[in-house]
Amino acid sequence: MTRGRVVYVNGQLVPETEARISIYDSALMFGDMVFEMTRSFNRQQFKLREHIHRLFAGIQILRIPLDMTPEDIERACHQTVEANDALFASDDEHRLMIDVSRGLLGIYQGIDGLHKGPNVIIADFPLRWTVAGMGSLFDTGINAVITSQRALPASLLDPKIKSRSRIHYLMANIEASHVQGDNNWALLLDPDGFIAEGTGDNFFIVKDGTVITPEGRNILRGVSRAYVMGELCVQLGIPVIEKNIDAYDVYTADEAFMTGTPFCMLPVTTLNGVAIGTGEVGAVFTTLLTQWSDNTGIDIGAQILAWDAADGRSAIGGPTPYQFIPR
Amino acid sequence: MTRGRVVYVNGQLVPETEARISIYDSALMFGDMVFEMTRSFNRQQFKLREHIHRLFAGIQILRIPLDMTPEDIERACHQTVEANDALFASDDEHRLMIDVSRGLLGIYQGIDGLHKGPNVIIADFPLRWTVAGMGSLFDTGINAVITSQRALPASLLDPKIKSRSRIHYLMANIEASHVQGDNNWALLLDPDGFIAEGTGDNFFIVKDGTVITPEGRNILRGVSRAYVMGELCVQLGIPVIEKNIDAYDVYTADEAFMTGTPFCMLPVTTLNGVAIGTGEVGAVFTTLLTQWSDNTGIDIGAQILAWDAADGRSAIGGPTPYQFIPR
Amino acid sequence: MTRGRVVYVNGQLVPETEARISIYDSALMFGDMVFEMTRSFNRQQFKLREHIHRLFAGIQILRIPLDMTPEDIERACHQTVEANDALFASDDEHRLMIDVSRGLLGIYQGIDGLHKGPNVIIADFPLRWTVAGMGSLFDTGINAVITSQRALPASLLDPKIKSRSRIHYLMANIEASHVQGDNNWALLLDPDGFIAEGTGDNFFIVKDGTVITPEGRNILRGVSRAYVMGELCVQLGIPVIEKNIDAYDVYTADEAFMTGTPFCMLPVTTLNGVAIGTGEVGAVFTTLLTQWSDNTGIDIGAQILAWDAADGRSAIGGPTPYQFIPR
Amino acid sequence: MTRGRVVYVNGQLVPETEARISIYDSALMFGDMVFEMTRSFNRQQFKLREHIHRLFAGIQILRIPLDMTPEDIERACHQTVEANDALFASDDEHRLMIDVSRGLLGIYQGIDGLHKGPNVIIADFPLRWTVAGMGSLFDTGINAVITSQRALPASLLDPKIKSRSRIHYLMANIEASHVQGDNNWALLLDPDGFIAEGTGDNFFIVKDGTVITPEGRNILRGVSRAYVMGELCVQLGIPVIEKNIDAYDVYTADEAFMTGTPFCMLPVTTLNGVAIGTGEVGAVFTTLLTQWSDNTGIDIGAQILAWDAADGRSAIGGPTPYQFIPR
Amino acid sequence: MTRGRVVYVNGQLVPETEARISIYDSALMFGDMVFEMTRSFNRQQFKLREHIHRLFAGIQILRIPLDMTPEDIERACHQTVEANDALFASDDEHRLMIDVSRGLLGIYQGIDGLHKGPNVIIADFPLRWTVAGMGSLFDTGINAVITSQRALPASLLDPKIKSRSRIHYLMANIEASHVQGDNNWALLLDPDGFIAEGTGDNFFIVKDGTVITPEGRNILRGVSRAYVMGELCVQLGIPVIEKNIDAYDVYTADEAFMTGTPFCMLPVTTLNGVAIGTGEVGAVFTTLLTQWSDNTGIDIGAQILAWDAADGRSAIGGPTPYQFIPR
Amino acid sequence: MTRGRVVYVNGQLVPETEARISIYDSALMFGDMVFEMTRSFNRQQFKLREHIHRLFAGIQILRIPLDMTPEDIERACHQTVEANDALFASDDEHRLMIDVSRGLLGIYQGIDGLHKGPNVIIADFPLRWTVAGMGSLFDTGINAVITSQRALPASLLDPKIKSRSRIHYLMANIEASHVQGDNNWALLLDPDGFIAEGTGDNFFIVKDGTVITPEGRNILRGVSRAYVMGELCVQLGIPVIEKNIDAYDVYTADEAFMTGTPFCMLPVTTLNGVAIGTGEVGAVFTTLLTQWSDNTGIDIGAQILAWDAADGRSAIGGPTPYQFIPR
Repeated sequence: MTRGRVVYVNGQLVPETEARISIYDSALMFGDMVFEMTRSFNRQQFKLREHIHRLFAGIQILRIPLDMTPEDIERACHQTVEANDALFASDDEHRLMIDVSRGLLGIYQGIDGLHKGPNVIIADFPLRWTVAGMGSLFDTGINAVITSQRALPASLLDPKIKSRSRIHYLMANIEASHVQGDNNWALLLDPDGFIAEGTGDNFFIVKDGTVITPEGRNILRGVSRAYVMGELCVQLGIPVIEKNIDAYDVYTADEAFMTGTPFCMLPVTTLNGVAIGTGEVGAVFTTLLTQWSDNTGIDIGAQILAWDAADGRSAIGGPTPYQFIPR
Repeated sequence: MTRGRVVYVNGQLVPETEARISIYDSALMFGDMVFEMTRSFNRQQFKLREHIHRLFAGIQILRIPLDMTPEDIERACHQTVEANDALFASDDEHRLMIDVSRGLLGIYQGIDGLHKGPNVIIADFPLRWTVAGMGSLFDTGINAVITSQRALPASLLDPKIKSRSRIHYLMANIEASHVQGDNNWALLLDPDGFIAEGTGDNFFIVKDGTVITPEGRNILRGVSRAYVMGELCVQLGIPVIEKNIDAYDVYTADEAFMTGTPFCMLPVTTLNGVAIGTGEVGAVFTTLLTQWSDNTGIDIGAQILAWDAADGRSAIGGPTPYQFIPR
Repeated sequence: MTRGRVVYVNGQLVPETEARISIYDSALMFGDMVFEMTRSFNRQQFKLREHIHRLFAGIQILRIPLDMTPEDIERACHQTVEANDALFASDDEHRLMIDVSRGLLGIYQGIDGLHKGPNVIIADFPLRWTVAGMGSLFDTGINAVITSQRALPASLLDPKIKSRSRIHYLMANIEASHVQGDNNWALLLDPDGFIAEGTGDNFFIVKDGTVITPEGRNILRGVSRAYVMGELCVQLGIPVIEKNIDAYDVYTADEAFMTGTPFCMLPVTTLNGVAIGTGEVGAVFTTLLTQWSDNTGIDIGAQILAWDAADGRSAIGGPTPYQFIPR
Repeated sequence: MTRGRVVYVNGQLVPETEARISIYDSALMFGDMVFEMTRSFNRQQFKLREHIHRLFAGIQILRIPLDMTPEDIERACHQTVEANDALFASDDEHRLMIDVSRGLLGIYQGIDGLHKGPNVIIADFPLRWTVAGMGSLFDTGINAVITSQRALPASLLDPKIKSRSRIHYLMANIEASHVQGDNNWALLLDPDGFIAEGTGDNFFIVKDGTVITPEGRNILRGVSRAYVMGELCVQLGIPVIEKNIDAYDVYTADEAFMTGTPFCMLPVTTLNGVAIGTGEVGAVFTTLLTQWSDNTGIDIGAQILAWDAADGRSAIGGPTPYQFIPR
Repeated sequence: MTRGRVVYVNGQLVPETEARISIYDSALMFGDMVFEMTRSFNRQQFKLREHIHRLFAGIQILRIPLDMTPEDIERACHQTVEANDALFASDDEHRLMIDVSRGLLGIYQGIDGLHKGPNVIIADFPLRWTVAGMGSLFDTGINAVITSQRALPASLLDPKIKSRSRIHYLMANIEASHVQGDNNWALLLDPDGFIAEGTGDNFFIVKDGTVITPEGRNILRGVSRAYVMGELCVQLGIPVIEKNIDAYDVYTADEAFMTGTPFCMLPVTTLNGVAIGTGEVGAVFTTLLTQWSDNTGIDIGAQILAWDAADGRSAIGGPTPYQFIPR
Repeated sequence: MTRGRVVYVNGQLVPETEARISIYDSALMFGDMVFEMTRSFNRQQFKLREHIHRLFAGIQILRIPLDMTPEDIERACHQTVEANDALFASDDEHRLMIDVSRGLLGIYQGIDGLHKGPNVIIADFPLRWTVAGMGSLFDTGINAVITSQRALPASLLDPKIKSRSRIHYLMANIEASHVQGDNNWALLLDPDGFIAEGTGDNFFIVKDGTVITPEGRNILRGVSRAYVMGELCVQLGIPVIEKNIDAYDVYTADEAFMTGTPFCMLPVTTLNGVAIGTGEVGAVFTTLLTQWSDNTGIDIGAQILAWDAADGRSAIGGPTPYQFIPR
């Protein structure tokens, strides 16, 4: 099923198996690569410009000497989608992964046959891979688990820069996978003890009708997070604020949920096994998700449930226990 | 000159240009790869087992399901050296880079044609690339620059695990490159304000005849560091201790130096431009380096100077300003 | 005078001297007991439901397997008041203490004759005991003393959970009692250096007409605090905000005051002996207290002054220097 | 079986069910009680004076105005043991719990019929209760679980003072009980990220023949810890040091173990599920435990195994999942 | 040119060379002196009362037993200006420096001939000295450099008190002077990693039309900062907020600028060499500065440029590389 | 009595009343002055070279461009003593204060008549002033008071550099002066909660025969501290170590004392009012002080007592409550 897909690599469309990076690349030496992962609704990319805008913030701060503009990247994204679209099942959505690395470290630039300069790579694969098995979470909700692994503070290694130096997210996922029960997703505190984020998602609570989310400091400022705060809540007249919150605030909230690009929003019904509010999926969550579905013309939860029913995760061999859900 | 070298990749020896990692590999997703970089003296690998031992500590803690033993890795290293040895100039030394990644993320394991399971890669290239331009530093010494970028504390992302989630080292190098003058190498404080390490080297001071180095906490515990402490100092009867030190201790030290696998030891003669001791290369440093040279049968500084004189960094196009010197 | 009072203990009303907890109870092993302390105005309990609501937040987070509902607790409170009311002097108010512990540790549950399961205890005694000697503070104000003992951060042991693991409050009281002069009450900074709270009271400043109180993070979120912010200030049209404040903000404020259940509000006229504003009781404080008195039909300060004039603290033997004033 | 035991309460021996504390006691108000828990070998108290010495350090620092001397307490302990000894099974050992609280808060001292002044309580019960079910751990070892709950730093609430303000230990136990698998014991990091202690035990590693344990800072300085360091290791000529250690040090250690009064020593064979050393019980552990058994004339592990075989934990109804093992 | 100026010293007007402080003064023993530095527009002091108000906050907190009122200080300022005015060039502005120290330490008060009690000193010199060479910065903008030297947190040594214990500002200036390129001004992070302030200036960013500046916590709350926030932005209808910001927020801002009394406002066009927004002087900055010029009747930038053109810094021998620009 | 003393000022000996610093000096702008204070025994300077050595460490790190050598300073010290010696009473000792400032800030260097370049000042006055009233402390001991004011960490403003940016020491003295009782001296914790130092003295405990003092990190490394550790303890065969200690260690120590240049050593008999050991002056203290007296030929305590008896502090008008005792 996946045969034939191509990946944009520095201006060329190459077979997916050829989308590889030299071991001498700074990305593989330092985790020195910025990236974005997007999704489509009805095959139309969603918030692509916002993703690319964030990508360029990282490029600028990391001083990657890229000679492409945001518009160039955007065109390359569309080119990649077009090249692959016919290979996707009719009910698929396009998930793009955009990677930009600095390229070869200086000392290896004398090696013949290796690409010089930054690498720009755009892969395109079915969104269903990423969300496999998540359909039921729209009903049951997630159990957020506060891990001993904490988020990194921005002054040391800024999570607002979406780089590949992020093994601590993986360590948090491993830790959460050790907890009894299902549907455990890691929730990281920052070094100040505030709720930060999940390992591929932003966290929200609802209290007395107000949507509250951690300040955009020791977290990735997710595109979905911004959409919920800046568009859905505005559209629905729901007040929304950024605020430092801690575990107590979550335990005593009325609702909680997570946002992430592939699944948009998922309810969080327990924290460390203790019910949040009634322990059921909340009304504000449902209202927001319904509006999001309406806005995009896709019933978001139903689409994922349908994928699970059809082939689900087994189609690709199943996720490892440490599967990561990027935003 | 570099044509023809081969790289060990999962049991195969492949051309260097083919030593690449899929964009779906956990290494490129999370910086989820442990690695080692070694050197030879007179073409004989030095402390190879110690490097492999540290590699396996990382594999164990990161829970990479590797089915090779340390002995397997060692054999593969020697196999790689043998395959390339004839291609090396007569005065070259072998620098090995050993990379172990977890392999494809779970959701991509259904893609045909991609290697399943962990990746083990061993590259072999001339050591002179890494040390290009360093010859004169044995005489002038380094200016250590304390950067605003600080080391990560072990409890957040342990620098004792030699992983690829390390873009902060690169950021520190960039920051140090902005300082006026030559020979600026970054020196990182840890979040407690103690001297931690350079971005590819361990730091030492000498005070009243005692060699002092930071406790092995928020640093990589370098193989060269261990050799200086556990073998050279013992051999020479020089007392050596681990201790928390800060900038004041460096400013008021008699000598300072850094250790790292490719260059072994380099003197640090100034801190933020202020002379340490006399501001000259110190006697203890010279004694240690001489002993190291005697032990290995290679005049370490002279060898690097000779390479610089012969072709130096220009042979490979020159290092970027952000060149990284791994241990 | 105190003879005859009864205490609700697990469904029974027992004499006050029998209101005791087994030494094998988790409360006495870990400080593992949540509690509330209330007061009446004109013998009517004030904000009882808010207190019980907070109690249940603690029960939930500490996972105490209690089989009573908030309504059950409320009924038990009223039952306890009724049983004791006739024994109270005509000018007394009812102060309730509600304690809920997890009960015996598991290893002691085989001992015959000990109550199994959580303990619920409700005591009822004259409010005048708690506020003995405070009458004059309404005129002179408190000298807030910043102690070296700091508040605990929520991520380590959350002060928002009103548990009995709180010996640090007592240590702060002891420390404040060592300072020269009268009317010294401890004011704790949190580990970030922000003003947190007193040892049984919340802290407020008034600046340019706005009432300001620390964010509800490393403090108990007092019921009186909520009443001032959410009801009195709203009723009076006084702007009120939560904000991180530090000693400088207090020194340069126009007024300051503390809130706590037994005394409602007390002015703070000096910080570490330095006058705040004019050093006199402030106008905003007086306005708020007057409104509170109007709302409840009790002249709050006058009532306490009258108690002091009548029998005062001597009636019960006098407070220790380390008397604690719970909210 | 437990019928008839008596407890020393302020000079009187009272039935165990009468060993209770007034709800107005500072112990139940603030966790303001210091305590010790001991054990016997062959019915002889072990290190009783060391326990009492530590008890008095807490009394002094907390300023509890006790009028008993250490010798008085020691006599009372022996008196309590004698009163109960005939009730113990022939293979039992005496576990004493010594509690000292400040007594009634000042405002309650006017209540008739309540004990005035500090409370001194000494209970005596079979050690087998505490160690029920631990017998097999001598073979399998413990899985230490690093919890998100961290130890408190000494500057905020000193764990070296053995007080009852310790609900965070209970929270850590609850957290560890949620992890998959058996034999999970909580291991707390301190706020600096160093290994601190378990919730009722001290932690040790063995590396290259040296026994290493965290510095005595953010931990209780256990009596068993002192015995291992100051007597057993000296007797056996095993080097022992205090040192800051972190998770990496444990993962790369040769062995690990915990010490605590009731069980003396237990092996720790995995950390967060990853094998330490070979993952088997270590040789240094075995040597130390054997020596301890020899010194006391009791085969420590065998005794506990025998208890488990005889009646085990079921005799007392079984521990809760949150059972706490005090030192 | 400077001959003849007089300085107010404890009620006397003395020649500038006689404006000196005893080596036994607390100011020279502890940095125990509070101060203010002002400027005039068209020879009229600007915000003099605000400066004096802040001065008295410091006097109060440091408990300097001064017997002058704010009005007394204000009169003394005017007296000093009048005494010197005729000596100033026609295009000069008056820069006042007001110093208040505690006076002689107690042990030196027996020395005859030394002033007893606090010292009050008011110097008056041409503003052009301070701003020499800054004219071109209005066009090029400043490169803000984040130094490894961090701001002090308020709980340790409060930067909101404008005292002379501030050598860390000087150290930061020295550090910034080592960076390559021109126009480098130090920008300090606080210990939490938030942007704090420059060494003599407050920092602002502009994002999406809103002016944002760090919370007034670990910074001096500048008079110019208050003027921008409380008057200029209000006058112009530009929204302005205080908020914790970090380097990422600056890198991704649309504009940035600094404020300080002598130069009012200067644009910051790069951070660590990376362009902020377009890297040009921003529109909001220009609007604010224009309004400030209009309000005061002085073209602020032009005035400084004119001074630079006329005699510039050379007139006074030139600033050291570590010149400090007080607010 | 003090008439006639002269002070060394930049090569000149001037009357004490003329020893003054321009208000434009960096010392008065930034606390940018390093200093030393010494004492004599029998009119012979003690450890003068050690003081000067430390002075030059500060000069080097602060980059003060001084053109005098340590030998120059030493000569100037002796010259100053000689010039004043005849004016001293026969039982006086010489206390020197050596101040080195950077000199005028750059912008003021155009002012005629002001000294250009660094200022070097050496004052010489009777030691008895500094130690007035301390005689009885050798018998009663000091009550060390842990203040809420904490020591600054070396990474922010290094206390090992003896500069004049030290108003926090004064604030701590003020705070300690507010505590009830006599003989209260401030004892500062560092931000990690470890015991650091007094405001003019180093702190020691004695435990089981070993002398223990905080690591030389967030403290001034006193000359007297070094003498006790490196000479007296060695001479007497008393083991001495540097170690992180906290309040618990002090409470449970056998003895405690402070060291400082003017008084050499003083016993600390209580901490926050709680007796340390027996609460009496300890044997190790007495042994050390006796040896010090023997080594110098002066009975240290007796000399100070004699001064107190003769004229004491009244001779110079008495210390303020905030008197500072420099080392």
